[in-house]
Amino acid sequence: MQCGLKITVIGGGSSYTPELIEGFIKRTNELPVREIHLVDIEEGKEKLNIIFELTKRMIRKAGLETKIYQTLDRKQAIKDSDFVVTQIRVGGLKARALDEKIPLKYNVIGQETTGPGGFAKALRTIPVILDICREIEVLAPNAWLINFTNPVSIITEMVLKHTNVRTIGLCNVPIGMINNIAKILGYESSRLRIDFVGLNHMVYGKKVYLDGDDITTDVLRNLAEGNSITMKNIPDLVWDKDFINALGLLPCPYHRYFYMTDEMLEDEKRALQEKGTRAEQVKRIEEALFNLYKKVELDVKPKELEERGGAYYSDAAVSLISAIYNDKNEIHTVNVHNNGGIVDLSEDVVVELNAVIGKSGARPIASGKLPIQINGLIQAVKSYELLAVEAGISGDYNTALMSLMSNPLVPSIKVAKKILDDILMANVDYLPQFNK
Amino acid sequence: MQCGLKITVIGGGSSYTPELIEGFIKRTNELPVREIHLVDIEEGKEKLNIIFELTKRMIRKAGLETKIYQTLDRKQAIKDSDFVVTQIRVGGLKARALDEKIPLKYNVIGQETTGPGGFAKALRTIPVILDICREIEVLAPNAWLINFTNPVSIITEMVLKHTNVRTIGLCNVPIGMINNIAKILGYESSRLRIDFVGLNHMVYGKKVYLDGDDITTDVLRNLAEGNSITMKNIPDLVWDKDFINALGLLPCPYHRYFYMTDEMLEDEKRALQEKGTRAEQVKRIEEALFNLYKKVELDVKPKELEERGGAYYSDAAVSLISAIYNDKNEIHTVNVHNNGGIVDLSEDVVVELNAVIGKSGARPIASGKLPIQINGLIQAVKSYELLAVEAGISGDYNTALMSLMSNPLVPSIKVAKKILDDILMANVDYLPQFNK
Amino acid sequence: MQCGLKITVIGGGSSYTPELIEGFIKRTNELPVREIHLVDIEEGKEKLNIIFELTKRMIRKAGLETKIYQTLDRKQAIKDSDFVVTQIRVGGLKARALDEKIPLKYNVIGQETTGPGGFAKALRTIPVILDICREIEVLAPNAWLINFTNPVSIITEMVLKHTNVRTIGLCNVPIGMINNIAKILGYESSRLRIDFVGLNHMVYGKKVYLDGDDITTDVLRNLAEGNSITMKNIPDLVWDKDFINALGLLPCPYHRYFYMTDEMLEDEKRALQEKGTRAEQVKRIEEALFNLYKKVELDVKPKELEERGGAYYSDAAVSLISAIYNDKNEIHTVNVHNNGGIVDLSEDVVVELNAVIGKSGARPIASGKLPIQINGLIQAVKSYELLAVEAGISGDYNTALMSLMSNPLVPSIKVAKKILDDILMANVDYLPQFNK
Amino acid sequence: MQCGLKITVIGGGSSYTPELIEGFIKRTNELPVREIHLVDIEEGKEKLNIIFELTKRMIRKAGLETKIYQTLDRKQAIKDSDFVVTQIRVGGLKARALDEKIPLKYNVIGQETTGPGGFAKALRTIPVILDICREIEVLAPNAWLINFTNPVSIITEMVLKHTNVRTIGLCNVPIGMINNIAKILGYESSRLRIDFVGLNHMVYGKKVYLDGDDITTDVLRNLAEGNSITMKNIPDLVWDKDFINALGLLPCPYHRYFYMTDEMLEDEKRALQEKGTRAEQVKRIEEALFNLYKKVELDVKPKELEERGGAYYSDAAVSLISAIYNDKNEIHTVNVHNNGGIVDLSEDVVVELNAVIGKSGARPIASGKLPIQINGLIQAVKSYELLAVEAGISGDYNTALMSLMSNPLVPSIKVAKKILDDILMANVDYLPQFNK
Repeated sequence: MQCGLKITVIGGGSSYTPELIEGFIKRTNELPVREIHLVDIEEGKEKLNIIFELTKRMIRKAGLETKIYQTLDRKQAIKDSDFVVTQIRVGGLKARALDEKIPLKYNVIGQETTGPGGFAKALRTIPVILDICREIEVLAPNAWLINFTNPVSIITEMVLKHTNVRTIGLCNVPIGMINNIAKILGYESSRLRIDFVGLNHMVYGKKVYLDGDDITTDVLRNLAEGNSITMKNIPDLVWDKDFINALGLLPCPYHRYFYMTDEMLEDEKRALQEKGTRAEQVKRIEEALFNLYKKVELDVKPKELEERGGAYYSDAAVSLISAIYNDKNEIHTVNVHNNGGIVDLSEDVVVELNAVIGKSGARPIASGKLPIQINGLIQAVKSYELLAVEAGISGDYNTALMSLMSNPLVPSIKVAKKILDDILMANVDYLPQFNK
Repeated sequence: MQCGLKITVIGGGSSYTPELIEGFIKRTNELPVREIHLVDIEEGKEKLNIIFELTKRMIRKAGLETKIYQTLDRKQAIKDSDFVVTQIRVGGLKARALDEKIPLKYNVIGQETTGPGGFAKALRTIPVILDICREIEVLAPNAWLINFTNPVSIITEMVLKHTNVRTIGLCNVPIGMINNIAKILGYESSRLRIDFVGLNHMVYGKKVYLDGDDITTDVLRNLAEGNSITMKNIPDLVWDKDFINALGLLPCPYHRYFYMTDEMLEDEKRALQEKGTRAEQVKRIEEALFNLYKKVELDVKPKELEERGGAYYSDAAVSLISAIYNDKNEIHTVNVHNNGGIVDLSEDVVVELNAVIGKSGARPIASGKLPIQINGLIQAVKSYELLAVEAGISGDYNTALMSLMSNPLVPSIKVAKKILDDILMANVDYLPQFNK
Repeated sequence: MQCGLKITVIGGGSSYTPELIEGFIKRTNELPVREIHLVDIEEGKEKLNIIFELTKRMIRKAGLETKIYQTLDRKQAIKDSDFVVTQIRVGGLKARALDEKIPLKYNVIGQETTGPGGFAKALRTIPVILDICREIEVLAPNAWLINFTNPVSIITEMVLKHTNVRTIGLCNVPIGMINNIAKILGYESSRLRIDFVGLNHMVYGKKVYLDGDDITTDVLRNLAEGNSITMKNIPDLVWDKDFINALGLLPCPYHRYFYMTDEMLEDEKRALQEKGTRAEQVKRIEEALFNLYKKVELDVKPKELEERGGAYYSDAAVSLISAIYNDKNEIHTVNVHNNGGIVDLSEDVVVELNAVIGKSGARPIASGKLPIQINGLIQAVKSYELLAVEAGISGDYNTALMSLMSNPLVPSIKVAKKILDDILMANVDYLPQFNK
Repeated sequence: MQCGLKITVIGGGSSYTPELIEGFIKRTNELPVREIHLVDIEEGKEKLNIIFELTKRMIRKAGLETKIYQTLDRKQAIKDSDFVVTQIRVGGLKARALDEKIPLKYNVIGQETTGPGGFAKALRTIPVILDICREIEVLAPNAWLINFTNPVSIITEMVLKHTNVRTIGLCNVPIGMINNIAKILGYESSRLRIDFVGLNHMVYGKKVYLDGDDITTDVLRNLAEGNSITMKNIPDLVWDKDFINALGLLPCPYHRYFYMTDEMLEDEKRALQEKGTRAEQVKRIEEALFNLYKKVELDVKPKELEERGGAYYSDAAVSLISAIYNDKNEIHTVNVHNNGGIVDLSEDVVVELNAVIGKSGARPIASGKLPIQINGLIQAVKSYELLAVEAGISGDYNTALMSLMSNPLVPSIKVAKKILDDILMANVDYLPQFNK
């Protein structure tokens, strides 16, 4: 038996990988990583190589002995891994651009993870993650799958329902909210804690604590006064004061798509005119990043990566890996089986909750009943997600239609059908389950 | 102690009353009605008198000894009643017209019972029904309140949560669906039975039986082929075939507002241009009806009443009264405390379910878990309703905003606020709870 | 396709069969029975023949054309049946005598259906019923299995969990309680209705109604004053007044085993001394009955059968069959999937509840939460039953031990083991699942 | 505002107090205790003074500035407290002796916290704790009540249901089990973690982890092989191997009363003959301890205290206080509102679960559904406890009878009544609620 951990990063050629590597380097003392395998597909070969070289420079600079590998042979990489991290984007930014454009044609929010865009992404991603899980089941049955491939809720739900792989779904929204509030209020973010409850990209902060003291009222007042909590990729629309008071909870940035649908739609349409889809913007950012990554003198994670949008994601992943490996029993906000954590939802559905993380995985903290003002929306989105998993697995047209129609952002059957037909057409190469 | 029942009809001057009276006449053998008190308010005095005279002629023609009274003194009428029937319309058709028009200004469905229109109606109706209940608690504590004042879900929820009055909420949608299907398939409606599940105006047929045999597939095929199940007051849009197959359940006519929102909205806007609001159409129908009612030679329920829209409503009410009085233990579809009937909802919320009706009231038949394809929408609407009850009782602006925002037909906070502000302004005379 | 129903009675040689036949004869107008197949095993051949001949005389006397068959070929009988009725006793009265004696050795209640005796009976019965169900699945997939083979709770639970057979479990306790109360109060039993809730032989009356009026208080007062509700086979111990007031519900006769354990145990021990086990008494009654049945002049159900203990059982079965066949939608108290009927128990466990019976089966009436004073005992017994099903299917010693230990009548592991070992030894011929 | 914490210890004259004081001394660096108020009643004045003097010597020895007070004025002590610790014994050891003896008269387990003995203790304790809570509500509304007065389940349930006091119920059983297993296996107890689930003195270990690795199988094997996990005050009977395998979970020492009732009863009767009740033994131990405490040269917690039975209790309390004060978010096993932590129980009942402890209190970790093999017993005991709270508050005889009868250790109504009548008679001075 060998010493130290084997980590496999699927989608290793992603621009996020340097943050992940930095995360491992920072935690050298607690996480003995023996080898890191960066896996990608043929189309990503070039990027993979750039990342591989940068990674090696970073490791060398840090004076570590961790071995780095690059490969297109996923199975070989997965074999005997301790942790498998997935950060893939099936269909690439081209598919994402379509996810964002197609709904807009019908005056519906076009967003990567939420609404019909996220639905299309789920349909493309499910077959690939399912394949990966089948390989893990055989080649690394004790491995943890740390998934931050979106839509995290649907993917985690699928893995827990249809495979035997141990998985935790991870998102940077909760940590991003904490950091934002810390910045607004002028505190160290480590002093803040939020009781999160809900679903991925549909998570609410029930209570905010500063050093354990309840400061929820202050935070809501700040929000109601126009201080915004948002993320790089979501327009910074200000919350209505009365609404925040009525809600009495902290919404997440993505909630804007549901509560300010009209304004967000206008913003998206305007942005499309002015600067193209978010996918196209990201493409330009990515090109710039990779140009930077190529420079042989670069041997640390460049600051520019933080502009990319997914800040904290990779670091949260490594922090989670360390909590598992070291049985830290510390609290992370993750996507896991509900297990009673939210009384109003079945035990066997995936929710996003604070959970105690240790070697045996994530144990959610019981949060009781959902406040009535959020129960409806959460139930609606959860039903949509469950149907999306079913559609993504079965490739059944009607289930897909029912799923889309159940998404609160989709206004009618007629529109649902048009969007669905467009999605199936545009993604035909990535949807084997619909083309049996 | 006197023999026979005392029935009080609040809103006795309603154009529906003759159907109610006919219902009692038809059931003379099983329902010994001693006296019927028709109550109305000052503004409805004239109509009340017309109805009173017609009613007396009907009773005389039937050769019955039931005594008929008209009065503006509600308390006197309620005292010692066995059954109190409410068929009021707070604010009259004028208020209804506004309920239908205001949302349309903002491209939102304007409907009497569903969406913001129904919300406005709930806010106006809650204080009045609450007053009635307070009187029943004192003056007729054993009376049954048979409520078919809309929105029935919200009103029944309010009565069961905030008063000690025994009540059953009643709607003509389920019986209308059975009659419609019977007509389409060419059967006597008495041979059909449907397992209904859901909420008022949001009820689904899980299974349809003909003489006890499951014919759900046939019915759904008929629906998918364009045979429509609808009601007088709801446009007859055809259901999408794939959607019906995906749903696998029978939607109710009102579901069109949620699943065909765009087309229904267009239809409403067109109808508004062409013939005014539904309220205005009803007003014309009502005027014609009352002209008819005035004729001293009329001594039966005129056929024209069936055109009115609320067909079967009153007959269903009398049938329900008879099932209670005679402890029939027969199955009616009613609005009652869930009590476990739908596993996914709390025991103490009101749902629309098949229930066994007897002297001790309505005992819902357990229907298990909600199919996932309808869970989201039902949960969303139920949350909206619970918030509407809270807003209607408290008169709190923020709660009202949260309630409206929670309604799936309301697209954004911005629109919710505009509509709410218009509603509060337009209904200022009927919302004492908001003007304390 | 043939006209009329095919009924198969497994355990056709039972002394109860004449009541069953009488039930069919009484319902000739509503239940067109084409043929009745009486099935039994080799050991019961002689009794089967006696019953067969009596049955033929009864049918002839009634002037019916129903054909009667006797057979040892179970599969042939089951093929294309509309209803299969099971009234078997695996191991016969000899095994029952042991069920009653073994626990008594260890100062534990020895009873046919409750406690360790019922557990032993369940272990013997499960493999046989499972075989019957496998045959029904193939040979008569649309048949209804009307089960009144004890322990009804466990057997129904097993059938619904492990087979695809449509079944309803039936017991004469609820109908017996109604008849008893009617007799005590001096009313026709048809005027009484009880809201039953619980498990088989562990059922409580929540409310008692006379013509729909709540008379629970009167009934409880009668009970508290010493008027007893009991059954032929259960000693007639009087309920404690304070306890009845504290309970506030109507216990069933079997509850004496749980609430008066010490007195019942003494009574059993005394009875064993004086007149042997109940099995032995029944054996004598049975012999007398069969001597009677043999008489060629007997062509009706003899009065003496009512002394037998299982009064109303068979009649209840035929009444249930008629409610199904005629889609009567009338209320029977039966053993079915909970489905939300009792909020505190899972949807998928079997409970005894009032249910609406029609062609599609039994739909339980929602009864809400269990009163706290009975929740503990019902939960404890349900857990025992679920473990008993598991043990009866798997033949696993430890599961059997855990099941026995979970029965509230079993005082300790030590006693549980002794009893279990005795049961396994004494029943070795009937427990193939434990001797693989 | 003053600096540092005010701690009030009700029952300050208890022999456990030195452990509590030692707990504070050990945590000087993290817990700034300004003053400790030792409260007791007139009858305990002498002991209180002995403890007071010893405490002062301990504090002086430790070189701390914490001020120690002794008082009989409870209100004065409670005023502005940050933490109130209750370690009272209403009726003293004399009452305890009766709790232990009375049930034995009727061949029922006589134990201080479990069965009828615990029930009697609950009835005596509820009025006193209720009074204390009323004082806290007024005089120290932000204080935390750390309750380790038995029966902890019932007392915590009562406080959370009937008062507004923030409370956490604490027991030394979980920590004792960890320490015992650690000793058996030869590990540091800090390396072990157990997923506890259940109720106070009815708690099971679902999984045992060593440094995060699941060693449950090893621990159960050890248990099955006769290695005992027990406590000072509970006889050390060995668990049956088959039973442990069937259970698949770790029982707590108190489970012996439920699973080995006969042997435990024999043991109790024998012990009563040989050495009197446990209360009488404790009395002798206590006298010896107080003789020791009196010695002016003693200035630390004496080793002999560990013999006393309640080891770890006080230390666990101080550790809990520190976790709250310092917002440690570390895991303790405590008695709290279920809140979904155990899916099968209502959100609003008290359970014993692992919980994350911080400034906002205890948030239980969701543990999903109860394994079926323990559901029955836990439900039965929880129902008993809920009824005991009701009886203890209302003083209603029938509710008390129903509660006792619902306790699985009570075999029949007859016995329940005899025991109840004896309890009410023997404790007449302490049961004002029954003597209104």
